Amino acid sequence: MTLRQAQDGGPSTALLTDRYELTMLDASLRDGTAERRCVFELFARRLPGARRFGVVAGTGRLLELIRDFRFGQDELRFLKDENVVDAATLDFLEEYRFTGSITGYREGELYFPGSPILTVEGTFAEAVVLETLALSVLNHDSAIATAAARMSVAAGERPLAEMGSRRAAESSAVAAARAAYIAGFGATSNLEAGRRWGIPTMGTAAHSWTLLHDSEEAAFRAQIEALGVETTLLVDTYDIREGVATAVRVAGAGLGGVRIDSGDLPTVAADVRAQLDELGATGTRITVTSDLDEFAIASLAASPVDSYGVGTSVVTGSGSPTAGMVYKLVARQDDAGGWVAVAKASTDKGSKGGRKAAFRTLDDGTATSELIAVSDGFEQLQTVASHPGARALQVTLMAEGEPDASYEGAAGVEAARAHHARVREELPVRALALSRSDPAIPTVYVDAE
Amino acid sequence: MTLRQAQDGGPSTALLTDRYELTMLDASLRDGTAERRCVFELFARRLPGARRFGVVAGTGRLLELIRDFRFGQDELRFLKDENVVDAATLDFLEEYRFTGSITGYREGELYFPGSPILTVEGTFAEAVVLETLALSVLNHDSAIATAAARMSVAAGERPLAEMGSRRAAESSAVAAARAAYIAGFGATSNLEAGRRWGIPTMGTAAHSWTLLHDSEEAAFRAQIEALGVETTLLVDTYDIREGVATAVRVAGAGLGGVRIDSGDLPTVAADVRAQLDELGATGTRITVTSDLDEFAIASLAASPVDSYGVGTSVVTGSGSPTAGMVYKLVARQDDAGGWVAVAKASTDKGSKGGRKAAFRTLDDGTATSELIAVSDGFEQLQTVASHPGARALQVTLMAEGEPDASYEGAAGVEAARAHHARVREELPVRALALSRSDPAIPTVYVDAE
Repeated sequence: MTLRQAQDGGPSTALLTDRYELTMLDASLRDGTAERRCVFELFARRLPGARRFGVVAGTGRLLELIRDFRFGQDELRFLKDENVVDAATLDFLEEYRFTGSITGYREGELYFPGSPILTVEGTFAEAVVLETLALSVLNHDSAIATAAARMSVAAGERPLAEMGSRRAAESSAVAAARAAYIAGFGATSNLEAGRRWGIPTMGTAAHSWTLLHDSEEAAFRAQIEALGVETTLLVDTYDIREGVATAVRVAGAGLGGVRIDSGDLPTVAADVRAQLDELGATGTRITVTSDLDEFAIASLAASPVDSYGVGTSVVTGSGSPTAGMVYKLVARQDDAGGWVAVAKASTDKGSKGGRKAAFRTLDDGTATSELIAVSDGFEQLQTVASHPGARALQVTLMAEGEPDASYEGAAGVEAARAHHARVREELPVRALALSRSDPAIPTVYVDAE
Repeated sequence: MTLRQAQDGGPSTALLTDRYELTMLDASLRDGTAERRCVFELFARRLPGARRFGVVAGTGRLLELIRDFRFGQDELRFLKDENVVDAATLDFLEEYRFTGSITGYREGELYFPGSPILTVEGTFAEAVVLETLALSVLNHDSAIATAAARMSVAAGERPLAEMGSRRAAESSAVAAARAAYIAGFGATSNLEAGRRWGIPTMGTAAHSWTLLHDSEEAAFRAQIEALGVETTLLVDTYDIREGVATAVRVAGAGLGGVRIDSGDLPTVAADVRAQLDELGATGTRITVTSDLDEFAIASLAASPVDSYGVGTSVVTGSGSPTAGMVYKLVARQDDAGGWVAVAKASTDKGSKGGRKAAFRTLDDGTATSELIAVSDGFEQLQTVASHPGARALQVTLMAEGEPDASYEGAAGVEAARAHHARVREELPVRALALSRSDPAIPTVYVDAE
């Protein structure tokens, strides 16, 4: 997709928005409610796929996209031509820049049902229009990271590479590579993710490389000529046993690795390992890449596999391609300036009104609950912020419209990855099982008033 | 995601690519195989989710992205700094522009297992590097269109709107809106899809609009003030029965519509219809939007619902977020200039070598088979091209590197939507059932030699 340039900065992200946000903005500017201070919260009612923990991802990307959430002449012209909003609203949008504050979970942090992953405070007008963009980014990236973390747990110390770009839309593939890296993957096949976010990239050859050549041997020779014997040769285009024999004959026993992309992997991996050892290639590594997900990875734990390449399942969230997070108005000021907690009342989609402060309670370093203090006002929450034996989960991501740059760019990604590795250590052992379950720790609400 | 500008045109798409494409390119330039003419085919081994037909989408988008597949100084610098390729390959990439030909299924066309959805012919060097981009676009967009078409079938004459942007990564949301529109949806909530592709946009208000106000009545009054009585009021923030009563009291019996986003929809829709009729609002339409998929839509066929809004399920392909298509080398020239059919030999991922020509055989206007003629050479296929009683499925999308502009932009989207509506009429009735099944028509291979 080609986005045109906004008045400054990167391509405008302002129209990555549901029309009703602007319709509401338009109506609120007419009746004066546009200026009411509001608190919106982004949270999940449940974890994707009945998993035991969720992983927040996308935060750093979102901050950058909010920088570019500006309405340039192209965007305004479209809104005018389509009669989406009136002239007064066009004037408002021309000057639009988010000036409020955003607090939230650090990228890489674990989350549970109800966790206030993002809290956006500002006027109704400036906060409502960020709904779609914030949800798009966090729903997608967190779904990928949550699936990727389980694969990372299943892989243990063995390296994992993300290779799923072809099974995701071209731009979300880049975001997926980033989310997987934050959740424990070590590399990606996606070059743009390497350029944009500094993620290590990898890849050697496909089956087409072998088929292009007059023989498998010619293909292997050419690859080694270009990449050296340390490269990884794909040995399953024709017959795997012959492929391995040819690989070692061509490269010698110092061959870096072989890759297997088909067949019954536990059997094939054992056979290939035995054959390699027999040929003296005891240091040659085995990479497997055939339709792996967290369950397939776990089932290979006892097999002589050295690393995994994961495609479709990680970029599609392994059955849960979206995290199902919502962005809800939870508190607003009334005309007298007092804060009012608000929430939808319906039974199946009810939510808890009021601003939240969130803590992870720990017992000897192990997480025991997601403690969420609820308040209609802001001041009361400060008194809960020093809850003993608990780690405060929210940080300031944006203050008066200024993002904290430490969460952005490649440095933000590395920090998120490190944070994730750290907080995953706090999980109780039962959280690491792959079967469907309730969340690993309960969400406990306390009233802060 | 922010993509930097390439040397000309839109942002470069060249790094939306798996590293191994460039590694293979690099090695092929060294050993001379880079210049071998090749035919790559993009096809699916099976339909997503055991469905009865697939819908091709993304073709027009892909043609535009291939225009921007150029390596500018930023892209080259990254590849050099990361030692992805050598200096000779950097020189090649600096001049890179696809000069081959692409034929394929028209966007909106139906497809079945083995259908040659895209056929890319050129040198190995120029064709191999398009693999990731082509698969990313077609796998995503076709998965969405395939799911959307089933929803469109289930909805019958009732209008369908796509509202799932928040549950998809921000850029794929735009592509998803486009794919759903091609497959029969009538509108989208996504403003960028409106600007970029000319798709009708819609939307009025969320629950936050009601919660922002001191009462539901105040919210409804303000919305009607801004949008007129023809607007749609969201009536389920508090109590639906009270919401409907308030809506009609405020707007009068001429209220355009009410939207219901929660509850047991068949029951609620019947109750709301009865209440509206009782209040004299017999022309007020009912829109439902709560977690709908094709099955929920079908189950509402007998309910008094006037239109549907679909979110998560359409943008995530209703359980099948990727179409699982692959891009395989199927034929190449040898040193003597003769064509050689090639294919991977493994049992579980085998494919059929040789260039294909595809036809849909019809009996009295109803599709009976996907007829695929296979040949090692090009000339022989011409003789099959006039197969009697069959519709040829492939068109020229790009000739000598020049895309056919009629497939691009908003006009391309409208043409694809019209084409889809037309060819869906050819499906046998059994193809329209929603249950899991074999494909509605068999794929039949004939040898053209």
